[in-house]
Amino acid sequence: MKLLLRSVIGLIALITMSNQHLAAQNDTEQIKRIFDEAWQNGESYAMLDYLCNQIGGRLSGSPQAAAAVEWSRQVMEAYGFDTVFLQPVMVPHWVRGQKEQARIINSKKLGTFEVNVCALGNSVGTGAAGVVAPIVEVQSFEELEKLGKENIEGKIVFFNRPMDRTLINTFAAYGGAANQRGAGPSEAAKYGAVGAVVRSLTLGDDDIPHTGSTRYALNVPQIPAIAISTNHADLLSGLLKDDPNLQFYFETHCQMKEDVLSYNVVGQLNGTEFPDKYIVVGGHLDSWDLGDGAHDDGAGCVQSIEALRLMKVLGIRPRHSVRAVMFMNEENGLRGGRKYAELAEKNKEEYVAAIESDRGGFTPRGFSIDADWKTIQHMQQWSTLFEPYGAGDFVAGGSGADISPLKPQGVTLIGFVPDSQRYFNYHHTAIDTFDKVDRRELEMGAAAMAALVYLIDTYGVK
Amino acid sequence: MKLLLRSVIGLIALITMSNQHLAAQNDTEQIKRIFDEAWQNGESYAMLDYLCNQIGGRLSGSPQAAAAVEWSRQVMEAYGFDTVFLQPVMVPHWVRGQKEQARIINSKKLGTFEVNVCALGNSVGTGAAGVVAPIVEVQSFEELEKLGKENIEGKIVFFNRPMDRTLINTFAAYGGAANQRGAGPSEAAKYGAVGAVVRSLTLGDDDIPHTGSTRYALNVPQIPAIAISTNHADLLSGLLKDDPNLQFYFETHCQMKEDVLSYNVVGQLNGTEFPDKYIVVGGHLDSWDLGDGAHDDGAGCVQSIEALRLMKVLGIRPRHSVRAVMFMNEENGLRGGRKYAELAEKNKEEYVAAIESDRGGFTPRGFSIDADWKTIQHMQQWSTLFEPYGAGDFVAGGSGADISPLKPQGVTLIGFVPDSQRYFNYHHTAIDTFDKVDRRELEMGAAAMAALVYLIDTYGVK
Repeated sequence: MKLLLRSVIGLIALITMSNQHLAAQNDTEQIKRIFDEAWQNGESYAMLDYLCNQIGGRLSGSPQAAAAVEWSRQVMEAYGFDTVFLQPVMVPHWVRGQKEQARIINSKKLGTFEVNVCALGNSVGTGAAGVVAPIVEVQSFEELEKLGKENIEGKIVFFNRPMDRTLINTFAAYGGAANQRGAGPSEAAKYGAVGAVVRSLTLGDDDIPHTGSTRYALNVPQIPAIAISTNHADLLSGLLKDDPNLQFYFETHCQMKEDVLSYNVVGQLNGTEFPDKYIVVGGHLDSWDLGDGAHDDGAGCVQSIEALRLMKVLGIRPRHSVRAVMFMNEENGLRGGRKYAELAEKNKEEYVAAIESDRGGFTPRGFSIDADWKTIQHMQQWSTLFEPYGAGDFVAGGSGADISPLKPQGVTLIGFVPDSQRYFNYHHTAIDTFDKVDRRELEMGAAAMAALVYLIDTYGVK
Repeated sequence: MKLLLRSVIGLIALITMSNQHLAAQNDTEQIKRIFDEAWQNGESYAMLDYLCNQIGGRLSGSPQAAAAVEWSRQVMEAYGFDTVFLQPVMVPHWVRGQKEQARIINSKKLGTFEVNVCALGNSVGTGAAGVVAPIVEVQSFEELEKLGKENIEGKIVFFNRPMDRTLINTFAAYGGAANQRGAGPSEAAKYGAVGAVVRSLTLGDDDIPHTGSTRYALNVPQIPAIAISTNHADLLSGLLKDDPNLQFYFETHCQMKEDVLSYNVVGQLNGTEFPDKYIVVGGHLDSWDLGDGAHDDGAGCVQSIEALRLMKVLGIRPRHSVRAVMFMNEENGLRGGRKYAELAEKNKEEYVAAIESDRGGFTPRGFSIDADWKTIQHMQQWSTLFEPYGAGDFVAGGSGADISPLKPQGVTLIGFVPDSQRYFNYHHTAIDTFDKVDRRELEMGAAAMAALVYLIDTYGVK
């Protein structure tokens, strides 16, 4: 009996091992099929070409954003996804108006220097009169506080802390400097500043201003705010050392208008076993107005659609319902992401996981997982399946802004992580254009996302 | 006594472990210093700017190649390397002449199609008369053999086997198709072909012809040979299916002239302990004439110089002599690499290792090691030191063409391996220009090479 029991246990162990072995081999093959299809017949690149070159920059509330909604709806319909629908959401409507101007005015009357700037998103404009005032450079909010009202009132504050070049993760470098843009203008206004100039958030030395949203604090005067190119930030800083009394002039014509009706766009492959449990892959459909939003985040949108297309064309029928979500208004409001989570809660939808691609269409490195340790360790077992594609980094970390409102519902959140070295060259600028995207790199990202969806769908997240 | 012995052994073990721990910590810090310096003050990018934009394409024997020799000598002198010297070497001097022309001539008189082509390096020209003949498409030399003289004689052979898109290592995909360019024309000539047209070696669908050298076999007629863009290769293939009798015309004015005196350029930091033992880092200074040789291989040259500069500026005095070598004539002869190995043997120089960077200035992934397994395993221990920089792939594999002639002398050969996805977009084309290179990616490569030199210098290769 004992012997028999042992044999049975042995047999069960053998079957289990053999099944595991077969499963692993099947996963390897399935993932290779996904990548091969993406490399040979991937359609991300062609989709992105259209989105960037036929529609272009698509800030929330703009006609182009409406075009992008309709385009992505049609694309997902044409691919024959089981359901395609819109989620209405009211979004802010900020417009840049005519081109910004700025110059450094030397108090010693040595002349003026035109500098490259752009208004920060959500900023109020100066109007035709512009703002002219002395300018004070600071590196931090602590320095601003030390200077206090007596040194700031009536002046323009120049936030000039550079991104840290010694961090390999350029998003960490961004995180270390981005509060100057997001909160800087209101911080300066607390001490009576009349304008804010922020060093562009990039690791390069160049002439391109980088926009991005600022958030005005409540009960603080809203002062006009601009970004200045890094080369001109260095010029301004150098001239200020020589002439602390120099004046700075800038003129912006941006304004916040009334909210506009827009949409998240959702395409779905229905689950065969658990149609009411969802796996999301998404990116944000809106972009800044200066460029074409190629890497930020056209790439993430087309990769999300492509992830579903790859599954469909390869006959991978998911057990759970899989959604590609084009979120609206990540850049200056996050209204789409919030609306999505609100509806998910209201409709009592259950989510297995949500994956966002919003770090550009570069060569894949892996995934960043925002979940409990058990989930992270479970998913890290899959790392070896992605190593043959250079994408084996499965690390604990943040996911994406649009899916973050799902966190209170306990959803496992995942960020697709491509190589980050080039991202901030283009981020929020006029040169975030289609020609900066490499076809193979982009298609591989879509394949990596589809492969992860396949594994999550097959094995769950814990 | 036994107890004492045990204590002594224990103490030795403790000291060894502690030393190892300290060594590891020191290595981690030293490598961080190298990367930090490269990220903050790296000079690879500025060097490459000059080489590409002030000198440009520099095919062996050209005035630009001479300029590049003098420029790299001056740069290394200016950095204060201990020795800078030239190694004279006679190189082939092939010139492209006036722009190539080619067209598909439909036998049904439906008109002609101009197509984008360029002569293959080392090819003979057609002269003003051009070549016009029926054209036969083949995918392989086996197919050519099957067709035989009766189907080939008097015709042009069109080699149209594409690179395999499903290989993540694009150099492997290149290796699977490159014999069409290198050996194809002579193979075709054996069966009496009068010309050869080769599908451009790239993974993309585009309009850009990719040059590169062909090698004529002895005792076979030298027939003119060109590369055609992938889009036009597909067009030609499609038209041939419709009209097998169509004719193809092309006209090239290239010619091989007399050999020219040129040089390898060598800069050296003298070793403090083993001045007569060498570690080499190198790239090739020559490039094709169509573009500026930015990725191929300006990147490898400036990274090699920068690796020595980083060590010097950080006060890392190597125990062995470390050389940055700018090899001449990799593209169409390898005369520089052969001359270097010949002199190394003649002068009885002893080499610890040679590292080549000739796969572009992209984001680092690791190193490829051509050595015995003991050496590979020894070096793989260092992988964890490179993982924080995304460059932890230490794999067995090929190194670089220029250092390969050192192999018979038993030198450990190493190739720097950056991400390969974008390389063949630009390889041997008019768009291999400075703007295709990212500053951080390039500088990180130089840091990775300097870090590996530091480890080899400290611990040896086995």
